Amino acid sequence: MGDEVVVLLDSYCSMFGMRVRIALAEKGIEYEYREENLGNKSSLLLEMNPVHKKIPVLIHNGKPICESLIIVQYIDEVWKDKSPILLPSDPYKRAQARFWADFVDKKLYDAGRGLWTKKGEEQEAAKKDFIETLKLLEGELGDKSYFGGDSFGFLDLALITFYSWFHAYETCGNFSIEDHCPKLIAWAKRCMQKESVSKSLADPNKVYDFVLFLKKKYNVE
Amino acid sequence: MGDEVVVLLDSYCSMFGMRVRIALAEKGIEYEYREENLGNKSSLLLEMNPVHKKIPVLIHNGKPICESLIIVQYIDEVWKDKSPILLPSDPYKRAQARFWADFVDKKLYDAGRGLWTKKGEEQEAAKKDFIETLKLLEGELGDKSYFGGDSFGFLDLALITFYSWFHAYETCGNFSIEDHCPKLIAWAKRCMQKESVSKSLADPNKVYDFVLFLKKKYNVE
Repeated sequence: MGDEVVVLLDSYCSMFGMRVRIALAEKGIEYEYREENLGNKSSLLLEMNPVHKKIPVLIHNGKPICESLIIVQYIDEVWKDKSPILLPSDPYKRAQARFWADFVDKKLYDAGRGLWTKKGEEQEAAKKDFIETLKLLEGELGDKSYFGGDSFGFLDLALITFYSWFHAYETCGNFSIEDHCPKLIAWAKRCMQKESVSKSLADPNKVYDFVLFLKKKYNVE
Repeated sequence: MGDEVVVLLDSYCSMFGMRVRIALAEKGIEYEYREENLGNKSSLLLEMNPVHKKIPVLIHNGKPICESLIIVQYIDEVWKDKSPILLPSDPYKRAQARFWADFVDKKLYDAGRGLWTKKGEEQEAAKKDFIETLKLLEGELGDKSYFGGDSFGFLDLALITFYSWFHAYETCGNFSIEDHCPKLIAWAKRCMQKESVSKSLADPNKVYDFVLFLKKKYNVE
């Protein structure tokens, strides 16, 4: 594993890109970070992910891997000799971690997006949906330190990146997530004590500025 | 592995349920099949999949696993000593198989659904989308016998179950898939020569009857 060339095509505020940054940081893998301008995507991005044309893309020794959760599993499998191992070793626990990470992707992104793209009743519906989604996740966390138990793992990584968007969601939606999900916020703060997480997550103020930029771009008042 | 109790909550025409049936057949695992009435879901289904309330659910020694691709990976991991192994062993090939299976889920189901729920221009758009999706998959297949190479595997399994819906899609959309994707149809016929596949797939005529039932139920003319 001496001559590895690892490049990450990413965008600073992407919760999907942040997942890959955390996984690489957890494993201690050096890589070249390339910020993409999503308004003017590079020819490299279009070549490496012609199907979805989306970041993040991990390019490992010239070969692209796309879709954040698939990239994280790839990193865990290729560098399986580097601790920590992110996926649980037990097949049932692996299936549970994959199930809830998939749930985050299917539900939380859209609900969160509704908080800053919608208004009035539609925004309230998005807020309800967002809180219900987080409450289900909080229930799955229970009294554990991390979703997988005592150590930070796959599902923690899949969810924590949304934490950097919470400030923007709360400001746009005019509500407090901690009022509804105090245990989840305590978990998020626990995760943030890890350098692999805190250094990989975008600054919440910059995410909020990015949301204001997007609102203007898409004519959302 | 002597006293395994395996139960599958499923619905005959579900392309997602069929994936699990193929995986269990490939591994030679005995199980109890329970057909769900999706218009009146059993309390067992609601208890075992409270989040999505959807089939398929695999119940292994009392514990539920949900979401078809996650179930198939679980089966492959729990019964790893039973051949065949469905996921490729190489991490990059695993990532590719997962990427394309995810692509099938994100694109093909919705495009196919549009073929029988939409009319006029919207239906034509769904048809275009459906054919483009299949053509991308055909490109990934290339000249290989199966997506993974010489043997039937994860991505073959994820895609082949849609084949039982092709007759319904073609009849509702008034087009021939083979005209657009002859290599993909040749691949499908190759897959159907496997008993694990042919015995797990729903009868295309029954799928078409089911689509007619759904069209009536949802007032689609």
